[in-house]
Amino acid sequence: AIALLVILGVCSLITMSVILLTPAGSDTKLTVEDLFKPEFVAHDPEAKWINDSEVIYRNRDGHVIKFNILTNETEIVLTNTTFVNFNVAKYSVSPDLKYVLFAYDVKQVKHFTFLCSKQQCYCYLMLFFREVWELDPPEVLNSILQYAAWGVQGQQLIYIFENNIYYQSDVKSNSLRLTSSGKEGVIFNGIADWLYEEEILQSHIAHWWSPDGERLAFLVLNDTLVPNMALPRFTGASYPKGKQYPYPKAGQPNPTVKLYVVNLYGPTHTQELTPPDSLKLREHYVAMVNWISKTKTTVRWINRAQNVSILTVCETTTGACVKRHEEASELWLSKQNQEPVFSRDGSIFFLTVPVKQGGRGEFHHIAMFTTQFRADQNEVRHLTSGNWEVTKILAYDESNDNIYFLSTEGSPRRRQLFSVKTVGLFPRHCLTCELNKAHCLFFNAEISPNDKHIILHCKGKLSELNAELAKFSLICYSKVVANVYFLCSDLPLKISYPPDFSESRHYGLLLIVDGSPGGQAVSDRFVLDWDSVLVSSDNVIVARLDGRGSGFLGQRVLHEVHRRLGTVEVQDQITAVEYMLTFPYIDRTRIGVFGRGYGAYITLMMLKSTDSLFKCSVAMSPVTDWKLYGDVLQNVQPLREQTLMLVHGTADANVHFQHTAELIRNLVKVGANYSMQLYPDEGHFLSQRSRQHLFASLTNFYRECLREEILPLPDDDEEEEEE
Amino acid sequence: AIALLVILGVCSLITMSVILLTPAGSDTKLTVEDLFKPEFVAHDPEAKWINDSEVIYRNRDGHVIKFNILTNETEIVLTNTTFVNFNVAKYSVSPDLKYVLFAYDVKQVKHFTFLCSKQQCYCYLMLFFREVWELDPPEVLNSILQYAAWGVQGQQLIYIFENNIYYQSDVKSNSLRLTSSGKEGVIFNGIADWLYEEEILQSHIAHWWSPDGERLAFLVLNDTLVPNMALPRFTGASYPKGKQYPYPKAGQPNPTVKLYVVNLYGPTHTQELTPPDSLKLREHYVAMVNWISKTKTTVRWINRAQNVSILTVCETTTGACVKRHEEASELWLSKQNQEPVFSRDGSIFFLTVPVKQGGRGEFHHIAMFTTQFRADQNEVRHLTSGNWEVTKILAYDESNDNIYFLSTEGSPRRRQLFSVKTVGLFPRHCLTCELNKAHCLFFNAEISPNDKHIILHCKGKLSELNAELAKFSLICYSKVVANVYFLCSDLPLKISYPPDFSESRHYGLLLIVDGSPGGQAVSDRFVLDWDSVLVSSDNVIVARLDGRGSGFLGQRVLHEVHRRLGTVEVQDQITAVEYMLTFPYIDRTRIGVFGRGYGAYITLMMLKSTDSLFKCSVAMSPVTDWKLYGDVLQNVQPLREQTLMLVHGTADANVHFQHTAELIRNLVKVGANYSMQLYPDEGHFLSQRSRQHLFASLTNFYRECLREEILPLPDDDEEEEEE
Repeated sequence: AIALLVILGVCSLITMSVILLTPAGSDTKLTVEDLFKPEFVAHDPEAKWINDSEVIYRNRDGHVIKFNILTNETEIVLTNTTFVNFNVAKYSVSPDLKYVLFAYDVKQVKHFTFLCSKQQCYCYLMLFFREVWELDPPEVLNSILQYAAWGVQGQQLIYIFENNIYYQSDVKSNSLRLTSSGKEGVIFNGIADWLYEEEILQSHIAHWWSPDGERLAFLVLNDTLVPNMALPRFTGASYPKGKQYPYPKAGQPNPTVKLYVVNLYGPTHTQELTPPDSLKLREHYVAMVNWISKTKTTVRWINRAQNVSILTVCETTTGACVKRHEEASELWLSKQNQEPVFSRDGSIFFLTVPVKQGGRGEFHHIAMFTTQFRADQNEVRHLTSGNWEVTKILAYDESNDNIYFLSTEGSPRRRQLFSVKTVGLFPRHCLTCELNKAHCLFFNAEISPNDKHIILHCKGKLSELNAELAKFSLICYSKVVANVYFLCSDLPLKISYPPDFSESRHYGLLLIVDGSPGGQAVSDRFVLDWDSVLVSSDNVIVARLDGRGSGFLGQRVLHEVHRRLGTVEVQDQITAVEYMLTFPYIDRTRIGVFGRGYGAYITLMMLKSTDSLFKCSVAMSPVTDWKLYGDVLQNVQPLREQTLMLVHGTADANVHFQHTAELIRNLVKVGANYSMQLYPDEGHFLSQRSRQHLFASLTNFYRECLREEILPLPDDDEEEEEE
Repeated sequence: AIALLVILGVCSLITMSVILLTPAGSDTKLTVEDLFKPEFVAHDPEAKWINDSEVIYRNRDGHVIKFNILTNETEIVLTNTTFVNFNVAKYSVSPDLKYVLFAYDVKQVKHFTFLCSKQQCYCYLMLFFREVWELDPPEVLNSILQYAAWGVQGQQLIYIFENNIYYQSDVKSNSLRLTSSGKEGVIFNGIADWLYEEEILQSHIAHWWSPDGERLAFLVLNDTLVPNMALPRFTGASYPKGKQYPYPKAGQPNPTVKLYVVNLYGPTHTQELTPPDSLKLREHYVAMVNWISKTKTTVRWINRAQNVSILTVCETTTGACVKRHEEASELWLSKQNQEPVFSRDGSIFFLTVPVKQGGRGEFHHIAMFTTQFRADQNEVRHLTSGNWEVTKILAYDESNDNIYFLSTEGSPRRRQLFSVKTVGLFPRHCLTCELNKAHCLFFNAEISPNDKHIILHCKGKLSELNAELAKFSLICYSKVVANVYFLCSDLPLKISYPPDFSESRHYGLLLIVDGSPGGQAVSDRFVLDWDSVLVSSDNVIVARLDGRGSGFLGQRVLHEVHRRLGTVEVQDQITAVEYMLTFPYIDRTRIGVFGRGYGAYITLMMLKSTDSLFKCSVAMSPVTDWKLYGDVLQNVQPLREQTLMLVHGTADANVHFQHTAELIRNLVKVGANYSMQLYPDEGHFLSQRSRQHLFASLTNFYRECLREEILPLPDDDEEEEEE
């Protein structure tokens, strides 16, 4: 019924038995430098459907390719030299395939001393047969646009400048300014402020095209009442200027939100979509907007506490929104930016909702909602069930009564593609579990416009490789590590073993703590990171536990941390270490721990509640002060004698450097010994250069700490030339 | 003719021969903790004359004592409990001895989250028989005053609030606002901006009382055109706010300056004193203001390049200023805030000026200027000469034709008190060289109002101690180090040897680089600092060189660095290390270097120009970028393989954290390995807690680096119970 197209996989993990047979010569050791070599970077082709038979993607050589899956023909749309010549950071091809929009990095091209904001600081140009235009608002030269992108028809495009939206019906027409209220750092039109980008939409895009390109829905965020957080700046100018941005901390006002739809054909008219009465006068968020027809959108509104959620269908010509579904929880609701999948007539929609599965608590499963008499009274039928989660509904193929979706059925570590019938006994079928050519355990999928084809993107564990990848995989083959999965108190534990592991030797152990609520550290997704270097080259065993609070293990595990952040996760991580100490090959005097962000918070809390369990630790961008929950800063005396390294970028907008600064001041007070690596003017995600420096610092730090003490053997002659 | 009063000395350095006899048990080793014990802190009594026979000072117990030197009577003016109860940071007693003005630290007393500015952030109160008033401007409660102090008569006092000067004729009278132009960070009345405080006046006080208290001279600094530098803030609040302050970098406009005199008795009238015509329309500074009679002041005006200086005498009732003396140099003028000493009638004044001394270049000596026919035509007579410097003229005792002064005669390391006759052959006499009770080599002196008595403050090398100090000195006795002085290419080199030094052993060497132009690191002034711990307890030899550019060695040595900062000093320091490498007991594989501020700049330049000469180095608050001179940041590749530690306070207003931040970014680029200790929100001078932490970090760092590698002796049994 559907064609599956596996267009690319990544470097594969290999099984333990294979590893043990591999010679562990020094040339097969992974180094920090390796991680930054092009052949070690997993190439993401960013493949996109342009119609039901054609895909556009970027190949490993950097060419942009149009690929017809029916004829197998390929065509180079854009050569890699274009990317180099124009220093292109991003590209997108117009819907009519005639133009390309480029994002340049202004800082590098023009040597501006422009402080990169959270929004893209690129300017955009258009290319067609080597003709290039710069995209600027009327009467503005060399503008720094915050965003620009094609619409869905022909050459229509919009861009955002100074927090206002501009529209062009084609590349040569004049710009039309759709909003005028935009004000830097205060009023945001069609683009997210910090809160919406990081916490609500998970994207800086806060506008949505109707399927025919005639209408545009967009948010207007008003941060007037939100206090500003200062990010300092130290480098790049004689008098460097910091910046401020609205950042609502606990107890501070949130931005207010309004949702509008503007029609773009004919005289523009802007219509507000009205929130549900129950949320209208309370602080609320717009968590999701999705068009379900040419004039109708579905919108999810949630309250500030995020425990009441209302899904509406809005008629954009009138602004009227009708409630279709409501969720409530005594704790908090998750997956609130999930897009429901509607039937063409809008009478049926599909959504994953938590469903109780016997004694194991609730798991997210597909529910089919069918409108009865009134719009907000649905007949609900549950299409799937079991102790596993549906992670994403991809499409509803109405003509074949099929739902396509990804799920963790079989193992929470996996993501496989399934279909389920919406009729009868809802028979379910795995489409990727038995694929001939790629035994891949972790897929992402992109379905074609008419649900005829699916691009599969394998993100982990290709055991048979195609020719193109063979050379690459061979490099990985002998260097990387073997992962073995355990359960520790029913929680998933992933342990990475060095290539020449032997049960009769003793190994240092590094525990990597993620632990942010809803996250997942133990999966079959392929990862090659700095800790792989320690495993491959320094005989360190690396472990990761998905403790309580983790995602993809059902709602019960997730909700265990409600109102006790930093307690149960600490217990779970310590339990995991104690469990591993029962392994005869773990040296209990050589245990290290690493955590970042929320994980660094857990790490510091672990150090405070254990007595010399850990020989050394790194807290990167640690959260040290939760106004509502725990607080590392209360009594840092237990951290005094730790071998502790702190890492932070001073311009981190997610976890402010403030946290580390307060920690340092407290550590100085108690005369603690610690080391640090601060990256001036770097944010939460470090630049490549700083990352390379950090990786070297981290591996040196743990290598030094976790290496085996070699006792001198006075009588033995030293062996030379072991080869 | 004059009574000398030695009221306090400090912990003495001891001679080498004594040290060698001292048992070096572990209890006599100096520790970092020792440095912060009260008995190791040199107590400064801050003794002041209140009239010709009475002194006020604070004794070691914290009581404020009035001492009559004629009757030997003492009286407790203020008990130490008062200081504790009120958390007093500063105190001063009113001229009529009836009131005391206190400075509280607002941050600690009131738990304000007030960002301490460069100016004092104290509020002031008055105490009299336990009655306390808070000193506030009219209509303002709980004000944060920038400054407050008594005048010279009765209870008159002024204070500065929001950059305006306020006057009270006595403690109970109403305040009179003397200026109204004050504007935070822009216009400063009677108080210095950053530039004047740090570079011109070396004080935040920019006002001067006439001797009878009837008039007040004050500067008005206008920083409108001076660009602002941002100092970030990270701690102390949910939304910490940084601050900005005017800071003119090279090539940027300076503040403009005007000098006014206001009369305080009767209706106030403010008169501007007019600058010399030659400087009126050019950027210039007011470098010194000093009253020479009830209505006359002397003022020194200098141009921005600081190579033309004009000394005027101003009639404050009219504002007219008459030139009395002019200096010019092809390089730059030093000692420009030196106060000339005038005769009572104003016809004669004394000033130190550079005088050529044969082949050794110019040294500062006392010149007597006597007015002839026209005011600006002086007869000049040089009272002193020789290859040494007069460091300060203290007083002119007209009735005895005596000038009292401090000089380096005998050795540039010393400061002794001399007198010279202003008549005849100018016979000179050392008053402190042969003092019976204290063989002190480094004095400061405070002369009584009528030139009858002098308080001597011994700042180094008391070899015989009075009873009060005996206990303290005994502690020092066995712990501290022996200093030996060398000449290296004619430049002074000070080497500190460990207590049990032996020529037959090998020692690590730590070079401490100061080297800021005009400074002096090699003197007989007593210093006990973190490096003393390394000498005393870790068998490290510490060396300091006064290279070219240093002060007190004559103008030729000082001017060697003109337009080549960071070249000759680097050569000199390296030459000194090479010289010391000829000593058989210095281990050439264990050499460290430390520098701070300008010294850190020299340190980094040395690292760049030597190849593994230094095993480890620390650059604290380094200057890395001199727009007009050198630049550490050009090619940091040579720093890549150094064991380098960087130290900086992020709110350093003198050497901005910017310098270290740019250096880190460059070091990250080349993948350098370095460590760092950053002190969040700390300035150029760290808080005591941070200093204690830093000292521990520094001593650990150098101890680790400079310790002798102990080769294992496999056959020896370990000795236990060595006692």
